Amino acid sequence: MPPMGLRLGGRGIMAASPYQQLEDEFRRLHAFRGALAILRWDAAVVMPSGSADVRGEQLAALETECHAILTSPKVSRLIERAQASVGALEDWQVANLREMRRQRDHSLAMPNALISRLAKATARAEAHWAEARRTRRYADVAPYLAEVVALTRDRAGMLGHHLGLDPYDALLDEFSPGMLVADIDPLFKALGRRLPSLVQESLALQVVPMPLEGTVSSSRQRSLCIEAMKALGFPFDRGRLDESDHSFTEGIPGDLRVTTHFDAADPFQGLLAALHETGHALYQLGLPPEWRDQPVGRSRGLALEESQSLLLEMCVVRSRPFLSFLQPMLERHFGVSGPAWQVDNLYRHLTRVHASPLRIDADELTYLAHVLLRYELEQQLIDGTLEASQLAEAWNDRAESRLGVRPSDDLEGCLQDDHWAVGQFGYFPAHALGGLIAMQLWEAIRADVEDLDASIARGDFTALNAWLRSNVHGVGARSNVHDLVKDATGQPLSAWPALRYLEAKYLEPR
Amino acid sequence: MPPMGLRLGGRGIMAASPYQQLEDEFRRLHAFRGALAILRWDAAVVMPSGSADVRGEQLAALETECHAILTSPKVSRLIERAQASVGALEDWQVANLREMRRQRDHSLAMPNALISRLAKATARAEAHWAEARRTRRYADVAPYLAEVVALTRDRAGMLGHHLGLDPYDALLDEFSPGMLVADIDPLFKALGRRLPSLVQESLALQVVPMPLEGTVSSSRQRSLCIEAMKALGFPFDRGRLDESDHSFTEGIPGDLRVTTHFDAADPFQGLLAALHETGHALYQLGLPPEWRDQPVGRSRGLALEESQSLLLEMCVVRSRPFLSFLQPMLERHFGVSGPAWQVDNLYRHLTRVHASPLRIDADELTYLAHVLLRYELEQQLIDGTLEASQLAEAWNDRAESRLGVRPSDDLEGCLQDDHWAVGQFGYFPAHALGGLIAMQLWEAIRADVEDLDASIARGDFTALNAWLRSNVHGVGARSNVHDLVKDATGQPLSAWPALRYLEAKYLEPR
Repeated sequence: MPPMGLRLGGRGIMAASPYQQLEDEFRRLHAFRGALAILRWDAAVVMPSGSADVRGEQLAALETECHAILTSPKVSRLIERAQASVGALEDWQVANLREMRRQRDHSLAMPNALISRLAKATARAEAHWAEARRTRRYADVAPYLAEVVALTRDRAGMLGHHLGLDPYDALLDEFSPGMLVADIDPLFKALGRRLPSLVQESLALQVVPMPLEGTVSSSRQRSLCIEAMKALGFPFDRGRLDESDHSFTEGIPGDLRVTTHFDAADPFQGLLAALHETGHALYQLGLPPEWRDQPVGRSRGLALEESQSLLLEMCVVRSRPFLSFLQPMLERHFGVSGPAWQVDNLYRHLTRVHASPLRIDADELTYLAHVLLRYELEQQLIDGTLEASQLAEAWNDRAESRLGVRPSDDLEGCLQDDHWAVGQFGYFPAHALGGLIAMQLWEAIRADVEDLDASIARGDFTALNAWLRSNVHGVGARSNVHDLVKDATGQPLSAWPALRYLEAKYLEPR
Repeated sequence: MPPMGLRLGGRGIMAASPYQQLEDEFRRLHAFRGALAILRWDAAVVMPSGSADVRGEQLAALETECHAILTSPKVSRLIERAQASVGALEDWQVANLREMRRQRDHSLAMPNALISRLAKATARAEAHWAEARRTRRYADVAPYLAEVVALTRDRAGMLGHHLGLDPYDALLDEFSPGMLVADIDPLFKALGRRLPSLVQESLALQVVPMPLEGTVSSSRQRSLCIEAMKALGFPFDRGRLDESDHSFTEGIPGDLRVTTHFDAADPFQGLLAALHETGHALYQLGLPPEWRDQPVGRSRGLALEESQSLLLEMCVVRSRPFLSFLQPMLERHFGVSGPAWQVDNLYRHLTRVHASPLRIDADELTYLAHVLLRYELEQQLIDGTLEASQLAEAWNDRAESRLGVRPSDDLEGCLQDDHWAVGQFGYFPAHALGGLIAMQLWEAIRADVEDLDASIARGDFTALNAWLRSNVHGVGARSNVHDLVKDATGQPLSAWPALRYLEAKYLEPR
């Protein structure tokens, strides 16, 4: 056994206030979560295929330890004592204490027995989901999803009881704190009223682009990605770009791991995914560094995270100015040229609307409709107005009205995503909320930042990043999303900026 | 915040015996150590250059947690209670309890204040060591090493007091349990008496090989390594081969990470390092699987670990039969041919003796002399018969008598290794012990396994691996090294098999 102790950090024992002791506990939690993030990245990117069992043990031990810290009597006692002398704390510390309490409340609300039953039910449902995708028959997995839904209803009820929220609101709160049904409904209704006709009008207007022929090797696509990511401010001394089956961003602000997936026949899929993830990474990078190991220094939840990836991928990258910047890079890295590779044609590719029943084929416009459909259905599953056995039919009906196209079978319908099978309810709405937030921020940025298009066209993202850092990233979890958006844009969060943006972009001849 | 709890493993609460509760605690420890191993691998192989600070926090938090488990009053109480009813345990469980106690004792012996002072002193010494290597003057770092030596003397005294061992024995016990000065001295004396003349005789006898001209790309060297590792039994579904500055093996039996370093101008350096590490990995892989998450299922310490890497690298790989197997692979992967690439000439390369003052230039024979020198000097540093200020002179004198060559300056002398600067005393002897164990095991293997040379020459390592698994790997930490060697070879550990092996190999005309 090597003298492990030699590498222990030494911190003397001294009288610390309850609040300071809490910071120590959450610093430890942060270190464990960072370790978890690297272990998850490793599992998705480099782990040997047969090592999932031992990795599972490591993840479970670390997650159990995180849960134990948050639910320990010591932490609860310290929170109460710190609250009692909250007047002595600075604003950031008060917000930090609020976030500590929030994390504690979420962890305390879940009895271990229910967690364990849900883990087993989701494992079963996930396995049968894969099988049902093979047979393309939802009926084969419906009873297993029903079990997950029943347990999730229990979980939502218990969580809601603890947090003083309605059951579905409690699930939403796990992913996007402070975004309740009462906030989301008016936004999604306004959006939902206009989307179907907007999709049809846009389809009628758009011009079929010239095809981008040939294939591009992964190594060429990778070198283009790296140059674009560097230009956008991704710090390669503090992060990596790798390939994995599904693109994602893992890690912590000091060690950001972005992945993408290259398709030799599609020169844009890998780049768009990498730049979407770069939006996530830049948000993490811009979080307040002095609070990086505390709850208040973490992201303000999934909706805001998605707003940052969508803002970069949709508003910035899928634009003529960015394509002007990208076009010579494409020629250089891919060795391409000719009319198909000019800005106008590239722009037609990146703003093409697809009337497809599949979310993975979606574009900026239809993606929102895909999310709305899932939001409505999962609410009904949780409140009991829809049973799991009725899901396939309800899905297909809604797809027809929302997207204008009816799935030809269950694989094109409700079997396409397995999020519910693994227990992720309250997750999808964050993606459309992220889109709305992104477009509202974008409207404000265009008003605030001079010569934005010209800067983007020459690959200068300094002013854009400075605006985002000061108005969004640097806020951390200090404000809720509503206050953050209002402070940044001068207006409460609404669907109107998004509709203005989408109409301008998709009803323009292109 | 995602519903982390969903991934928690659920284990019901039931009445468990003190021994069973200990197994649970050590299972948790094993999971944390596995996580540490992957995080260390990541830091050496893929981590972005700027992320060392956040990684340091993660490693420290996990190491602190491991230390906290081992030193908790709960674990000590359980050990005493389990010991009280030891009669009810099976043999493996008794050995497991003994190893649990051993780990606990080592952890308990170190006060945090001393750990902290040593951490600071070694950080200073390490920094000044690098600087002294630049100026090639040991005097520049001597005061800093003196500080580390003084604190290590305290540490050794305290550890020895706790374990009932002499101070230096306590340091040895951290790396190679059960190998004390009283065991090592007679072995190293017998070896040391013969080595200097053996080196000279071998130098006089050996023929200068034809040079291996040209360069070989990393990717070709890598594909050769992978084919050779597969033949030797390395499981690529449970492990990886990567490149790093210094070769090492990390991970746990279910997820083994080997690294090497390729030099285009040297076709063998990367292969030999990879196969040396493969020996480590095969040992880990062969540990008793049913005890893989318990102390008794871990390696029996550094000396035995090194015996497995040296047995593979020295006895197996640096042999004519293995080179007969390798030779067509070299032609195929490297595209080489001609007389320099025939077995006899390759064998001359791999058994060439180098009279160099530098350990990194050492061969099978002189490596042992390099270790003996370090063993003698570090003992004197700890018992106070040598002061840090006198080290350079003492080193040079001994190098002359042991190796037959006097270093031309301190960089060729005591500055070449920084192990002592970082506090690693008791570490080096394991490498020569590993060599002695390897050669004694090898003598037994040659007697026990029929047609060994012919099997190796056709790349069949089944019988060799089966012998090692049954006699060495599968024993885990159940026996001490002395019993293991005696059970495996029928003889107590001695230097005679090594001397027989070395004389046969290096006094043969070649």
